[in-house]
Amino acid sequence: MADVQRRLSNGAQRIDFAADPARYRHWKLKFDGDVATLLMDVDEKGGLFEGYDLKLNSYDLGVDIELADALTRLRFEHPEVKVLILRSGKPRVFCAGANIRMLASSTHADKVNFCKFTNETRNSIEDASENSNRPTICVVTGACAGGGYELALAADHIILTDDGSSTVALPELPLLAVLPGTGGLTRVTDKRKVRRDHADVFCTTEEGIKGKRAVEWRLVDEVVPNSKLEDVVKTRAREFAKKSNRPADLKGIALTPLQRKFAADSVEYGSVAVSFDRKARIATVILRGPKSPPPATAADMTSQGAEFWPLKLARELDDAVLDIRANELDIAVIVFKSEGEGEQVLAYDKFLDTNRDHWLAREIRLLWKRVLKRIDLTSRSLVAIVEPGSCFAGTLAEIVLAADRSYMLIGKRDGGNRPPAAIALADINFGAYPMPNGLSRLQSRFLGEAPALDAARKVIGTMLDAVTAEKLGLVTFAYDDIDWDDEIRIFLEERASFSPDSLTGMEANLRFGGPETMESKIFARLTAWQNWIFQRPNSVGEEGALRRYGTGQKPVFDTKRV
Amino acid sequence: MADVQRRLSNGAQRIDFAADPARYRHWKLKFDGDVATLLMDVDEKGGLFEGYDLKLNSYDLGVDIELADALTRLRFEHPEVKVLILRSGKPRVFCAGANIRMLASSTHADKVNFCKFTNETRNSIEDASENSNRPTICVVTGACAGGGYELALAADHIILTDDGSSTVALPELPLLAVLPGTGGLTRVTDKRKVRRDHADVFCTTEEGIKGKRAVEWRLVDEVVPNSKLEDVVKTRAREFAKKSNRPADLKGIALTPLQRKFAADSVEYGSVAVSFDRKARIATVILRGPKSPPPATAADMTSQGAEFWPLKLARELDDAVLDIRANELDIAVIVFKSEGEGEQVLAYDKFLDTNRDHWLAREIRLLWKRVLKRIDLTSRSLVAIVEPGSCFAGTLAEIVLAADRSYMLIGKRDGGNRPPAAIALADINFGAYPMPNGLSRLQSRFLGEAPALDAARKVIGTMLDAVTAEKLGLVTFAYDDIDWDDEIRIFLEERASFSPDSLTGMEANLRFGGPETMESKIFARLTAWQNWIFQRPNSVGEEGALRRYGTGQKPVFDTKRV
Repeated sequence: MADVQRRLSNGAQRIDFAADPARYRHWKLKFDGDVATLLMDVDEKGGLFEGYDLKLNSYDLGVDIELADALTRLRFEHPEVKVLILRSGKPRVFCAGANIRMLASSTHADKVNFCKFTNETRNSIEDASENSNRPTICVVTGACAGGGYELALAADHIILTDDGSSTVALPELPLLAVLPGTGGLTRVTDKRKVRRDHADVFCTTEEGIKGKRAVEWRLVDEVVPNSKLEDVVKTRAREFAKKSNRPADLKGIALTPLQRKFAADSVEYGSVAVSFDRKARIATVILRGPKSPPPATAADMTSQGAEFWPLKLARELDDAVLDIRANELDIAVIVFKSEGEGEQVLAYDKFLDTNRDHWLAREIRLLWKRVLKRIDLTSRSLVAIVEPGSCFAGTLAEIVLAADRSYMLIGKRDGGNRPPAAIALADINFGAYPMPNGLSRLQSRFLGEAPALDAARKVIGTMLDAVTAEKLGLVTFAYDDIDWDDEIRIFLEERASFSPDSLTGMEANLRFGGPETMESKIFARLTAWQNWIFQRPNSVGEEGALRRYGTGQKPVFDTKRV
Repeated sequence: MADVQRRLSNGAQRIDFAADPARYRHWKLKFDGDVATLLMDVDEKGGLFEGYDLKLNSYDLGVDIELADALTRLRFEHPEVKVLILRSGKPRVFCAGANIRMLASSTHADKVNFCKFTNETRNSIEDASENSNRPTICVVTGACAGGGYELALAADHIILTDDGSSTVALPELPLLAVLPGTGGLTRVTDKRKVRRDHADVFCTTEEGIKGKRAVEWRLVDEVVPNSKLEDVVKTRAREFAKKSNRPADLKGIALTPLQRKFAADSVEYGSVAVSFDRKARIATVILRGPKSPPPATAADMTSQGAEFWPLKLARELDDAVLDIRANELDIAVIVFKSEGEGEQVLAYDKFLDTNRDHWLAREIRLLWKRVLKRIDLTSRSLVAIVEPGSCFAGTLAEIVLAADRSYMLIGKRDGGNRPPAAIALADINFGAYPMPNGLSRLQSRFLGEAPALDAARKVIGTMLDAVTAEKLGLVTFAYDDIDWDDEIRIFLEERASFSPDSLTGMEANLRFGGPETMESKIFARLTAWQNWIFQRPNSVGEEGALRRYGTGQKPVFDTKRV
């Protein structure tokens, strides 16, 4: 398959991860008190790229960008919602999964980025249930296949209608010679805990499973006669809403549009600035600290809304990372820098700590957690450069800990007048932002050195200079001004000279020491195998199943088992 | 790269996994009381395939087959050994890792099989330490690079000589654009618990790390001046031997050569028979139960030696599985059957339970554990067929539980006179044979159904008919004679029609629900990424690093990060 970048159907040069509910083409959000309903009703002609129609509620990255946006808005704009109903807006089909023609014509990088983003979105559905007490009920009417069933799997409760034809299925293997790679295999075994031999039968049965057997095999939670479906959905919604401990009568904030200016070699946000050195294959992301102290009260935070610094920065950083991932494939290294006052950053962290039971403070922290995980899972070399004038403290110190390595300048720059660089830890660094493996970044860092973790805890709130930070193991290297430029230059040049693929593989291993969770298994065991299959001629070759699907020709397989 | 099978340098048609110490070409075993020394001294001209020399103690599958053999013999033939010293028999080089020219000219299947086997062998080094109280000390003199350091990582204690030039290194990424895939990345983070940013530096530093920094970064346990090396090795050996709780004065048994008869479509062992239906792409492995009751005493077991049924069967089954893996790449499905009396199998399990503190009984159980794990990790569809006359009980019931699915016949076959099929569980099925994920196969099976696990425990020792076994969830399907042949035929035909790659990926996910361990991470996160890289042009393409290594030409990379 020619690995050629496809054209966006809207004529744009970049995939845009920002969405506007007023212009959704694929989803409808309805509200009824504390119950929200998200209807999937994909516009066939609304494909992100040229060359395919999104038939039967099949989806592509564009559909998922709207879904991710809707899920985020639900959390910030509609905190009154206690339960989400996810269902189809089309008759006789729930969702046919990822669009096959889109996949068949995708570059390898497109496929991988698409799957990664959809996985992150499904994880965020589970996060809302687990951490925001806002569960999701999925109502399956009609065919629910492949990525459609994987979407259902992200819900807490799956209701399947018993109309003689509605089924759940993972037909990827028999139909396309690929895996149900959006968490499907992992959620079947680890979340639904389907018995492994039943899972084997299910995943090799193209037509799927319906009715009683779907419940017996734990594939869905209940099967309901079509005539009673709406009553049951209402009842379940009430039950789940009752179990949620979310306060009533919350009022949301508006997630106002991101302010961005794209130029040839930069993207300028309010609190984030991205610049590209495309020759050196480097993106520099500068995070700007707060310009003013935190507000006095939670009510003030709410009235600042989307302008409240931690929220603004998280949204902008998320967009910047997604933009680099999808649109800047030649970038090898993301260099993180920061500008501002570390004490101010700590003050905001303290403010969020103080208001940790306020719904908005909690949602902001959860958003940061997800953005930081997105960085962990970004297949670029990550380096933090800690210089005079930077503000890597508290929440922003997580960026240093997320980096593959970090450099910190000792003392001042020659001729510079900014005070020496300092970093600082806060309570927030010790558990509130778990990585996909379930550990904090400090725990992951000090897997073998409990004393180092204790020592780090003892300096909470202290501004640490470079020598101290290196001694405490918080940064990789501390250099003075004499060596600084050379060391960093050599590192960046060397990094760009390595094979991109081997870096992706190495970083995916070194970043996730220690335990695995269902989430990390999805991005490791499942995704790595899927990416392998996405390279194999049996699926993507000219005679492979993905290419031949729908052509009437049978795929031809190399029968060797590897 | 042309994916063409290479020629074995000994002119044989099959890779032979049986080795004979008298004909080792690459390893020397020396004994000094309770201390054994295994010297790696690779014969340059002793490559398994044609086309490369094994310079600088580099290795290929043939070298590793001898290593695996030596490690198994140590356990059975030399139980008096309490500590193993692993070191180089060559001056100035410990081990240069996997031979690069061998890798560069390998087919994808060869690479994957090679890495899997070497990983299993390194795991067995750790198993001997953990479960047989026989630790390994690795003495590094000279360059210890790539697979050489990965071998060292399997030891409990690594001593590095401080001679100014001896180093440890994982240069795979900068040199070859592949990963340290024989457990290297995982053991660095999860076993040695090297800090992730140090690991990043280490794995991108071609020349490696020596001296004090190697200790500070936890890469080795101690650095010793060359002049004191031999004294320190002796001291450490004594210390480790003292800590081992192995009894003194044990006498081993001889692992006599396997009796095998290879024919065109079969391999006949004593207790195992393999037949190939190459057109249907099926290998049938028949396991034969014991012909006589277990011996009366442990001493009798010892005098039976390698003829003792559980040991004989484990060795033969291991060889059969390895043979299929490496030499029968077109086989899609392994069908496991058994013949014999289930009660007899249970009697042997009871005998091994009773003698569980006897060194030989323990080693036999540990060998079974490793053979069963080898089956879990075999990338072929596994099916157990439970028919009249079979003996899937106790240890052999693990084969049914290891299968991707299982079929059991209800009642007798039409016209048959054998009694209906029965299976039975024993204590041994509830923990003694953990899978790579650390759970028993029953735990993995009933992840979501604790009551099912309890119900299974209640029927320990009972011969269960097909209907009962299906009800208890121990087999996938129970069919009577009317449906039996059709159901199995349809399944086998369907399985052979699927893409081999997608089956490999699916099975690797469904078999390992639940937690991950360091061992399972090596075969999942690490291996799956490595296999992906082994498909990427940046490493294996005409201009890729693996192909261009040693040619003087620099590799050319596609710079896109995926």
